[in-house]
Amino acid sequence: MSDSAFSKDNRWLLPEGVDELLPPRAAQMETLRRQLLDQFGAWGYELVMPPFIEYLDSLLTGTGHDLDVQTFKLTDQLTGRLMGVRADITPQVARIDAHRLRREAPSRLCYIGSVLHARPEGISRSRNPVQVGAELFGHAGVESDIEIISLAVASLRTAGVAQPHLDLGHVGIFRGLARAAGCTPAQEGALLEALQRKAVAEIDELLDEAAIDPHLRRMLRALPQLNGGLEALDHAGEVLAEAPQGVRQALRTLWGVAAGLERRLPDLPLHFDLAELRGYGYHTGIVFAALVPGYGSEVARGGRYDDIGRVFGNPRPATGFSADLRTLVQVADGQPAVPAGKGVLAPWGDEPDLIKVIEALRAEGERVVQELPGQQGGAAAQGCDRRLQQDDGGGWVTRPL
Amino acid sequence: MSDSAFSKDNRWLLPEGVDELLPPRAAQMETLRRQLLDQFGAWGYELVMPPFIEYLDSLLTGTGHDLDVQTFKLTDQLTGRLMGVRADITPQVARIDAHRLRREAPSRLCYIGSVLHARPEGISRSRNPVQVGAELFGHAGVESDIEIISLAVASLRTAGVAQPHLDLGHVGIFRGLARAAGCTPAQEGALLEALQRKAVAEIDELLDEAAIDPHLRRMLRALPQLNGGLEALDHAGEVLAEAPQGVRQALRTLWGVAAGLERRLPDLPLHFDLAELRGYGYHTGIVFAALVPGYGSEVARGGRYDDIGRVFGNPRPATGFSADLRTLVQVADGQPAVPAGKGVLAPWGDEPDLIKVIEALRAEGERVVQELPGQQGGAAAQGCDRRLQQDDGGGWVTRPL
Repeated sequence: MSDSAFSKDNRWLLPEGVDELLPPRAAQMETLRRQLLDQFGAWGYELVMPPFIEYLDSLLTGTGHDLDVQTFKLTDQLTGRLMGVRADITPQVARIDAHRLRREAPSRLCYIGSVLHARPEGISRSRNPVQVGAELFGHAGVESDIEIISLAVASLRTAGVAQPHLDLGHVGIFRGLARAAGCTPAQEGALLEALQRKAVAEIDELLDEAAIDPHLRRMLRALPQLNGGLEALDHAGEVLAEAPQGVRQALRTLWGVAAGLERRLPDLPLHFDLAELRGYGYHTGIVFAALVPGYGSEVARGGRYDDIGRVFGNPRPATGFSADLRTLVQVADGQPAVPAGKGVLAPWGDEPDLIKVIEALRAEGERVVQELPGQQGGAAAQGCDRRLQQDDGGGWVTRPL
Repeated sequence: MSDSAFSKDNRWLLPEGVDELLPPRAAQMETLRRQLLDQFGAWGYELVMPPFIEYLDSLLTGTGHDLDVQTFKLTDQLTGRLMGVRADITPQVARIDAHRLRREAPSRLCYIGSVLHARPEGISRSRNPVQVGAELFGHAGVESDIEIISLAVASLRTAGVAQPHLDLGHVGIFRGLARAAGCTPAQEGALLEALQRKAVAEIDELLDEAAIDPHLRRMLRALPQLNGGLEALDHAGEVLAEAPQGVRQALRTLWGVAAGLERRLPDLPLHFDLAELRGYGYHTGIVFAALVPGYGSEVARGGRYDDIGRVFGNPRPATGFSADLRTLVQVADGQPAVPAGKGVLAPWGDEPDLIKVIEALRAEGERVVQELPGQQGGAAAQGCDRRLQQDDGGGWVTRPL
C-alpha cells in the first residue's frame, strides 16, 4: 500500500462508528473508570471480567433478536463453531452468576469493558462503546430495583451529571393486557411497536383487527396517555382498576419503586411512561432510563430481567443497569487525572543520584520525563512546566520554566 | 436450547484459550492495571485507547505474516470491507503517533486493552490476553532503548516480579550477515528458523546450499554459540571483528544498552543471545524478553521497530515493550484492592439518617452492603465482617460479627 493511500483524515482510516481516544481524553476516561468501579465496590458490587468472545449459543442464550443482529460472528479455527463478539455484557454476567458462582445469597456484580455493535446505534452511533454496569442477582423485591436505580443515579453524579431525569416503566403492564386479550405474538409485537411510537391511529387499527374485549381494549388504548409525574400513576390506577391481577401487581411495583426513590433521592425528577418498553423482549419488570436535559438521548438504562439464568440451570431474579463510558465522558467532560502541561523535565543520565531523585519525584506522584539526547522540542513539547537541574552545590532541584 | 445442553464445566462453555476472571481475581487485575498505568504516567507516558477493530489494511500495515494469521477477520456490514480484531496493540499505537499526533518531539505513549488471537499461542495458550505496554517514538539512540527496558523492569517489579531475567539480542547482526552473504529472502527465513532452534546440523546444510563466502559463513555459524553474560559480547566482538559495518554497529548498540542497564539496574541479570530473534519481521534493532525463573516463558517482550510509521506518512524511530496483564497477575499473584471478607452489612431502609451513615462509610472507602428483605445467607455470604446497627440511643454503630 502506498503512502498516498492514507488520507490525513482519520475518519477515512477507522470504520464508521469506531473511534479511538487520544490524550488527554483517554486519561479522562481512565479516571472515570476508576471512580465508577470504586463506587461499585463501595456499594458491595464485585468486579467480574467476562471474555470478549464466546460461542454464539452461549452468548445469545436467553436474549432477543436485537442482540443477535448486533453481534459480529467469527468462526473458531479450532472447532469450526461459530463465536460472537459480545454486543452486551449483561447476559455474560448473568451466565457467570448462574453458572460459575452458583450462590444462594444475592450476588452484586459489576463490570466494564468494550463491546462491539455490528451496526451504529443510538444518538452516538458508536459501534465500540465501553459498557459499564452493575447487576444484582437473587432478589425479587422492589428493594433491589431501588438499590440499582439509586446506584445508577449515584454513578451519573460521579460522572458529573448532577441532575439526571429518570424515565420509569414496567413491561408487565402492556404484556399482561396483551396476553389477557389473547393477542398472538405477532399482534403483540405490532402493538408494542406502535405504542412506542405513540402512533394512535395505528394502535386503533391493530386493536380493531385483533377483535379485543372492550375492557382490555380501553386499557391498552389508554397506555400512550399514561405518562407524566406521579399523577400519571394515579391516573393509571383508575384506568387499570379492573385489569388482570398481574397488571395491577406491576403497577403496585412501580408505586413501590417510586416511593423508595422519592425517599432516597427527593430531588430526582421522576417521569413515568407505561408505553415506554425498552428492551421488552429481555425485561420482565421495571424498566428505566436516565436522561440528561439537553443531551437528547439516554445516558444509562436498566431494569429487571428475572430468570435469564434458567438456561444455565439456575434461574434467579435479576435487576441491573448499564451505561457507555464514552458517552458519560462526553456528557460530563471531566478532568484528566494528571493535568496536561504539568511535569518535570529531567536531563538524560544514568548517575545513581540523578536516578534516585527521579524515582523519588515519581513516587510522590510527579510526572518526570527524561530528556533524550538530540531530541526535538523542549520542555513544553513534553508537557512539562518545570526542569530538574543541579544547583551550585551539585544537588538536584526543580525550577519552574 | 435445553438446560442439559450446558455442562457444569465452564471449559465446555468458553472456547479453548478464552477465559474470564471472577472475584477476587478480577479485582487483582484491576489493581495491577492501575499501578502500571500510574507508573507509566509517572514516567511521562500518555495513555491512548485505540479501537478494538479497524479495517484490515490499516491494522496489518507494516506488520508481518504472523500477525495476519493471528487476526480474526470480520466483514463491515456498512461497507463490505474487511475488518480485523486487533491481535496486537503496538501497530495501532504507531499509527496514532504517525498519523494522529504527528509530533516532531519524542512521544511517549502507553496503552492497555484486550486483544484476540485466532490461535492459542505461548505457554499460557491464551486467545484473549490483556495487552499492556509503552512505546517511545521519535528517538533513535540507545537512551530510548535503555529507558524502555528500564520501564519494562520497573513494571515487572510493580507486578511483584522482583528479579526478572533479561534476554537481549539485536536483529541487525543476523540480518546484516545474511544480506552481506547474498541470501535470498527464502534462505534468510530458513536460516533464521534454524538459528532460533539452534539446530546446528540444519544450519550447516543451509549454509552449504547457499554457497556463502567463508568469512561470513564462519560468522553466521558462530551465532548459536554467542550467548551468555557480558563475556558473550566480548566473544562476539572477536568473532565479528571483520563483519560488515552495520553488523559491528549493531554490536556497539548492544554494548551501549548493556552499559546503561548495568548502571541503572546493577542487580539485573543480563543474558545475551545473538541467535535470539523474536519478532524478526517487525523489529529493526535491539530485541529483548524478560523471563521469570521457574515460569518457563517470557512475561514481557519488546524492542526497536523503526520506521513503522512510514506507511502513515511519518516514519519515526520507535522502541517499546508489552506484556499480558493476565500473565503478570498469575506470575505475581497480587492482592485485590479490597480484601475479601471485609465490609459492613447494613440493614435495608430508606430513612435519611441511615442512608447518610451508609454514604459516609462508603466515602471513607468502606464496602457497605445493604441487606435485602428476605435474602438468603447472612453477613458472611455478602463478604462482610461487621454489621451496622442502632445502639440504645438510636445512633448507628458498626459492630464486629
